[in-house]
Amino acid sequence: MSDCLFCKIIEGEIPSTMVYRDEQTYAFRDINPGAPTHILIVPTKHIDSVNFMINDDEPLIGHLFTVAKQIAAQEGLAEKGYRLVVNTNAEAGQTVFHIHLHLLGGRQLLKMG
Amino acid sequence: MSDCLFCKIIEGEIPSTMVYRDEQTYAFRDINPGAPTHILIVPTKHIDSVNFMINDDEPLIGHLFTVAKQIAAQEGLAEKGYRLVVNTNAEAGQTVFHIHLHLLGGRQLLKMG
Repeated sequence: MSDCLFCKIIEGEIPSTMVYRDEQTYAFRDINPGAPTHILIVPTKHIDSVNFMINDDEPLIGHLFTVAKQIAAQEGLAEKGYRLVVNTNAEAGQTVFHIHLHLLGGRQLLKMG
Repeated sequence: MSDCLFCKIIEGEIPSTMVYRDEQTYAFRDINPGAPTHILIVPTKHIDSVNFMINDDEPLIGHLFTVAKQIAAQEGLAEKGYRLVVNTNAEAGQTVFHIHLHLLGGRQLLKMG
């Protein structure tokens, strides 16, 4: 757990540009953005990836989406549009093994992969 | 509701290649795949987009992810990897206004947008 980059970011051990926080969730700007807006929304609970989700995590994962909806509105993306992405393992390009929802927007988005 | 393409697919009024079904969810193959595996996982409840989610929908949206995890395993993608995507409105390329989770995999995926 102490070796997880995102756990350290959530705890404030590693700095980040916070966008949102509640008891279950932390959101911050991606330091290597793939679009004009690129925010990562992570559960404070450590889950390696979708492969490690259990059924009891469903409300938590769903909560990431209501947080994303709220952030999209704050960022002025709700009407124009935004993409939400979760990558699992190498062929999807997952690099940090703490489940996270990418929120991308601010221009016309292209293919999904 | 009767004008929704995905509601018609869920009801069987329009044919589709089913991958999975339970009481809350229907999954089928995208007819215009963007990757070797491209499956759409939809809630049977009609929700236009993430913008129209309510907090009570959180368990349902989270359930799409445990279904995705199960389908990814069935498709032999769990270890290699897979991407899950939800598009909202024009700049993300949303074309059907019934919330749906894209499951993409089967090759190295590229940029998220």
